[in-house]
Amino acid sequence: MDGLIVDSRGARMLAGGSVVALPRRPADDLGVDERYARAALSRLVEPVDKSMVGLVERYGAVTVFADLRSGVLQHDRARHWRARLGRLDVEEDLRQAAELGGRLVCPGDAEWPPGVDDLGARRPLALWVRGRQSLTEVLAQSVAVVGSRAATSYGSHVGAELGAELCDRGWTVVSGAAYGIDACAHKGALAAGGRTVAVLACGVDVTYPAGHRALLERVAEEGAIVSELPPREAPMRGRFLVRNRLIAAMTRGTVVVEASPRSGALNTAGEAIALYRPVLAVPGPVTSAMSAGVHQLVRKGMAELVTNAAEVIEVVGRIGEDLAPEVRGPVRQHDRLGPDVARVLDAMPVRAVCEVEAIATRAGLAADTVLAGLETLVEQGWVEEVLGGWRRIKK
Amino acid sequence: MDGLIVDSRGARMLAGGSVVALPRRPADDLGVDERYARAALSRLVEPVDKSMVGLVERYGAVTVFADLRSGVLQHDRARHWRARLGRLDVEEDLRQAAELGGRLVCPGDAEWPPGVDDLGARRPLALWVRGRQSLTEVLAQSVAVVGSRAATSYGSHVGAELGAELCDRGWTVVSGAAYGIDACAHKGALAAGGRTVAVLACGVDVTYPAGHRALLERVAEEGAIVSELPPREAPMRGRFLVRNRLIAAMTRGTVVVEASPRSGALNTAGEAIALYRPVLAVPGPVTSAMSAGVHQLVRKGMAELVTNAAEVIEVVGRIGEDLAPEVRGPVRQHDRLGPDVARVLDAMPVRAVCEVEAIATRAGLAADTVLAGLETLVEQGWVEEVLGGWRRIKK
Repeated sequence: MDGLIVDSRGARMLAGGSVVALPRRPADDLGVDERYARAALSRLVEPVDKSMVGLVERYGAVTVFADLRSGVLQHDRARHWRARLGRLDVEEDLRQAAELGGRLVCPGDAEWPPGVDDLGARRPLALWVRGRQSLTEVLAQSVAVVGSRAATSYGSHVGAELGAELCDRGWTVVSGAAYGIDACAHKGALAAGGRTVAVLACGVDVTYPAGHRALLERVAEEGAIVSELPPREAPMRGRFLVRNRLIAAMTRGTVVVEASPRSGALNTAGEAIALYRPVLAVPGPVTSAMSAGVHQLVRKGMAELVTNAAEVIEVVGRIGEDLAPEVRGPVRQHDRLGPDVARVLDAMPVRAVCEVEAIATRAGLAADTVLAGLETLVEQGWVEEVLGGWRRIKK
Repeated sequence: MDGLIVDSRGARMLAGGSVVALPRRPADDLGVDERYARAALSRLVEPVDKSMVGLVERYGAVTVFADLRSGVLQHDRARHWRARLGRLDVEEDLRQAAELGGRLVCPGDAEWPPGVDDLGARRPLALWVRGRQSLTEVLAQSVAVVGSRAATSYGSHVGAELGAELCDRGWTVVSGAAYGIDACAHKGALAAGGRTVAVLACGVDVTYPAGHRALLERVAEEGAIVSELPPREAPMRGRFLVRNRLIAAMTRGTVVVEASPRSGALNTAGEAIALYRPVLAVPGPVTSAMSAGVHQLVRKGMAELVTNAAEVIEVVGRIGEDLAPEVRGPVRQHDRLGPDVARVLDAMPVRAVCEVEAIATRAGLAADTVLAGLETLVEQGWVEEVLGGWRRIKK
């Protein structure tokens, strides 16, 4: 065990009962730099590995990767991290990403999105990115729009409208490129000429779902495709759930459009809540299973009900700005009449000519009050005096 | 002004700046009793007349009616109250009501619904009732279901379902017998063999709307028709709004099914809130103008979102009882696997046979962990060992 320092305090802090043993070494010992090491570790380590994030935080990716590869690193998960060593080809990964107009973005890079650091020990080691624009810039004013794969035509419509309206107002729409709501949100954003970001549960070069090849190409052109998984990694079940935390962390809030009570979109909502990001819920018919999960979010006080993009922006936008206009019905002229005058009008038949006395008994008002009311109504064009009494004017 | 006592303190309290002058008289001076007097006043006074309610409260209906008729009563609204004296025929009103199986229910009667007293000075002078059962009993466990006249097919469906489900659970459904949601709620209740109460903005003998003749007959048979207006009074615009306060006051809570931002149903909701009764809101598509008012109720914190009758009863029912079952998706077997075992399963292709080594690199787990996981999966019937490796079993 020559050259190793067992840091028992660090071991307790970082690894929760496992043994951590790490060598002291210069950072460029193996000729690999931080980005190279993080690229490598992103292949070896399945996302959300708090032990690895802790080690990298403490010792740097270069040291951790070198010692993992050389066998010097002792940790009770190290044997799992070594399981994919045979698959490692960092040069090829970086070359392939570059070929797609991509790159590896690491903590400390100018375009590292600050939101993901809120994930703490669950933050990604690095992000593989396709797209020309700076990720920080694209995500600066962004909101997640997520929902069910098995979206209804209602949900699809609302998802697309919301995507478009958010982009119209200068917001970037972030989603997961899945079938259903995700796709509609991306498409709506693209149709509005806006920016949209797809966060994948597979490599940024993998077309998943296969039917979304064209959509993913357009997203990469107009916004960005992001993943913590390196090129060629396939989507696996567990990867969708951990991917959701990135969608929640990268954005200022998460809108759930349709979700059954078991939808992955509710998982994204839960991640947003854990990060103190607002969750917005778009209601739907109570007869639709696809809206049941959304309604539950509202009922549990986990989400605020929203009905349009303005209401979303009111929540995720800066305080005091972006106030949504209140939904109101038209103000009817009738409302502006005083109570007695309105009663006179109400007491008049729709077509027939009517005498003051008859109006008075119908309205339960004295004749002089009825006459005064009729005068007001004539002035305002509601009624006219005719032979034998008064009559309503059609409005 | 002989025989009058001007009670200036009462005048300030009751009539807000008007002059009140009332005689001291024995209650049976004119041979009319309290019920007769209230029947008469219900004809003379348009609903929600705080001055009249205050006078009746203070001096009794017999005295107030006698002095109003004789001209002794001095009050600045007295000339309005006298405008309908020519229409007065209390014997005929009571006879007509009785012919319809009806009666006048007054404060102090055993079947006077206690909830309406919460209206204070806005409470009715009396209630005209059709229906065989005791009003108190019918309304003891009751909930209002209201909504738009211009209901969509969605709203109509939900209104009827809710009416039926509430009745199934022993609740009386109260509504306003209007077209749209009101009618669907009544019909749903009747279809479930339950009790339902229609509160009208016209006399209990008036068929309004005309198309609801058969519905109103059935409501009178199975529950009750209620109005503070005497027989033959026609519905007028202002009467619908004041009617709504009775619906809110008679029930333990108000459910709004569909409402445009100007719907009268929102007025009923406002009355319920003013009475500290819960308001429940059934969401709908955000693309529907008929749900916009309902969504606003939720957004303003005025109503709780509900999706079914059980959730309604959870709110209006007694505390601690009537808890609605939480809406959940099915628990999938997959969720019960540990995290490493689930990762092993995820890493296996759907059809192909797979070796431990390949699973290990796909899963990012050491071979021994993969083998242990496969053992668990074989035990639980997820995979089987075959020539050349392991394979998923179709589930």
